[in-house]
Amino acid sequence: MDITKLSREELGKRLSELEKEYEQFRAKGLKLDMSRGKPCKEQLDLSVEMLAYPYRDRIFKTASCADIRNYGLVDGLPEAKELFAQILGVSAAEVIVGNNSSLSMMYDSISRAMTFGVYGSPAPWGRLPKVKFLCPSPGYDRHFAICELFGIEMITIDMKDDGPDMDTVERLASEDDSIKGIWCTPKYSNPTGNTYSDDVVERLASMHTAAKDFRIFWDNAYVVHHLTDKPDSLKNILEACKKAGNPDRVFMFASTSKITFPGSGVAAMAASENNIDLIKKQLGIRTIGPDKINQLRHVMFFRDLAGIEEHMKKHAAILKPKFDMVNSILESRLGGKNIASWSKPNGGYFISFDTLPGCASAVVKMAGEAGVVFTPAGATYPYGKDPQDRNIRIAPTLPPIGELKTAMELMCICVEIVSIRKLLTV
Amino acid sequence: MDITKLSREELGKRLSELEKEYEQFRAKGLKLDMSRGKPCKEQLDLSVEMLAYPYRDRIFKTASCADIRNYGLVDGLPEAKELFAQILGVSAAEVIVGNNSSLSMMYDSISRAMTFGVYGSPAPWGRLPKVKFLCPSPGYDRHFAICELFGIEMITIDMKDDGPDMDTVERLASEDDSIKGIWCTPKYSNPTGNTYSDDVVERLASMHTAAKDFRIFWDNAYVVHHLTDKPDSLKNILEACKKAGNPDRVFMFASTSKITFPGSGVAAMAASENNIDLIKKQLGIRTIGPDKINQLRHVMFFRDLAGIEEHMKKHAAILKPKFDMVNSILESRLGGKNIASWSKPNGGYFISFDTLPGCASAVVKMAGEAGVVFTPAGATYPYGKDPQDRNIRIAPTLPPIGELKTAMELMCICVEIVSIRKLLTV
Repeated sequence: MDITKLSREELGKRLSELEKEYEQFRAKGLKLDMSRGKPCKEQLDLSVEMLAYPYRDRIFKTASCADIRNYGLVDGLPEAKELFAQILGVSAAEVIVGNNSSLSMMYDSISRAMTFGVYGSPAPWGRLPKVKFLCPSPGYDRHFAICELFGIEMITIDMKDDGPDMDTVERLASEDDSIKGIWCTPKYSNPTGNTYSDDVVERLASMHTAAKDFRIFWDNAYVVHHLTDKPDSLKNILEACKKAGNPDRVFMFASTSKITFPGSGVAAMAASENNIDLIKKQLGIRTIGPDKINQLRHVMFFRDLAGIEEHMKKHAAILKPKFDMVNSILESRLGGKNIASWSKPNGGYFISFDTLPGCASAVVKMAGEAGVVFTPAGATYPYGKDPQDRNIRIAPTLPPIGELKTAMELMCICVEIVSIRKLLTV
Repeated sequence: MDITKLSREELGKRLSELEKEYEQFRAKGLKLDMSRGKPCKEQLDLSVEMLAYPYRDRIFKTASCADIRNYGLVDGLPEAKELFAQILGVSAAEVIVGNNSSLSMMYDSISRAMTFGVYGSPAPWGRLPKVKFLCPSPGYDRHFAICELFGIEMITIDMKDDGPDMDTVERLASEDDSIKGIWCTPKYSNPTGNTYSDDVVERLASMHTAAKDFRIFWDNAYVVHHLTDKPDSLKNILEACKKAGNPDRVFMFASTSKITFPGSGVAAMAASENNIDLIKKQLGIRTIGPDKINQLRHVMFFRDLAGIEEHMKKHAAILKPKFDMVNSILESRLGGKNIASWSKPNGGYFISFDTLPGCASAVVKMAGEAGVVFTPAGATYPYGKDPQDRNIRIAPTLPPIGELKTAMELMCICVEIVSIRKLLTV
């Protein structure tokens, strides 16, 4: 039933049914949080045995480190570098393994670029009259918050099924030398769930950039986070950059935050050796080294990429039913009504939901008033402003499946109410 | 035997004896590292049982945190904040607990001050034509390295027995508004081992500063690191600042790097709530939170300050014999010769050693040629330049006691040789 084709009378009737249903939900006094991409308890339990290491066997010496408990190894335990090299498809010499947060590594990379410049910078970015970043959107709000804090102007780029709108990216990057970088979550993108095509990766690697020190911030947050046994595959961008003669163009990031523990995982970055050498020097002023015990804990628990892939299947077994449940409620409540569309990702942490233009904030507000918190509408766009006010990020991972069902039913009711009200005012 | 009073003939004879002794040492092919203040293996073993937590009891929920394994709590686990509040003598609301490195927290504090300013800054420090820091010296080389990286001009301040030369500090700070801060290691100072007097603490807290946003970087690295049962006591500078009407003047830092594990301890900073509130906001852009599992591990192992104090007695039992050994070799080999003086600290990690002016680099070089590495001479001064070339930092903690003895004997020989050569050229 295409709602946009109903008469005003039919719309009014449907609206009053929905408003009754909404009031019933509101009366329940719900208190549900669907706002962040947090793993659920069952996922966290999957890695608890990791915490036995290296205590259980009292192993504090590795092939390449005399005592992991002591100071040193600013770029991480060599065994952990090797593990992340496998995850990111690079060599261990191209990796720095840090503490628990890849977001921190991204923030620090921006901070260093602003203060000192990156490898090959003619000047620190912060000395320039203007610095701009390309921001494929909807995207990750925390990337945009870093830009906002540092006064980096954000340019919204449309996200298409195969990645950012590359015609626009290429045109802007080649014209404007104040554009210093682009934020990418290339695999199971936050929140759209799509994976960049080989063509997009190649164009990013090879495009002409007016800024000689342009950097792709390649946040591969969901690199092994598949939901199906037919996972998306992503072209290796560091290789592509090297082939295109732009070896220093990319900073890659990943972490085990959603593999082991969000607070106590291990994060890493990878880049060309030129980049890594400079960063290591700067990093050596900031710290004497990362938490190598936690790094060894991860290495002992997983051993290698195959161990991680095995582990991720257990995550998928927990998450897939939640994603399926969300999709089935959306289908049954909103399917064919011509007022919404949503993503059906093969991995990652989010479902991206689009309302009719101008409805998203009202939906999030209405759901909030009935006790269900969604990520604020607009959060997935630079400056928190969705130009069409239509995107809502659904984070199905944290709530138990019963709560998730309730939250989604409520959301669907809100979507339909707000859409009808909109149609009635046209 | 006061060597400076010997005849040239007597000096020459003594020199040739020493040169023979030096050659014997050199022939041994030593390979000893006395350069860094690293805990030794026995010290690291003291905290291994900590690694059983919280795994052993599977405790991941605390009174104030629903699941320590998940994201959140950017300023740290409340129980860890309470522990550091006890260590630093402040309230938990005045504490941020981070990851494994207090050096990183200092670096980040400088970095944020340069880019954004501190609480109350009229402008980001990095926008000013010049930023200067007062650097009591000899001091900690890694503090100075941070200044150097950020282009902050360092002004060397003499270190006296009771702390920095306060007459000079007060005069410069009140005259020059480009002086934005001072580095202090107030207790068992690195490397001199002295503790600031109450008078010095009060003067730092109450002095007039031309810069309204002047900050004392109070690196209380050795706050509980006593070597004797009559420890030095240090006046609480945050209290002193509040009493003097300058509550926002100080950033305090501490860590468990030399209490539990240098690579895998927990670091914290403390300051007025005005400061902490601003820093938390900025920090919330950088990270979703620190490693709370490691924080809980520490809380469960120590429980409270009394638990830490008990633990530190075990460290002292390991370290005291090493410090005593160094002192006894220095006494027996150099005592009364009028060519050297050294500190006898009640805590901390270093013995500060002064040669005759102009001799320190030659001593370090000579010891290095015989296989014993000391911290580079000059490292304890801004820009690595000891104006009198006389200070050597001795780090007795890491080597086994036999190696320490050998290294110190060699060093004494080098000191005497270099001193005599110097006297012969006068």
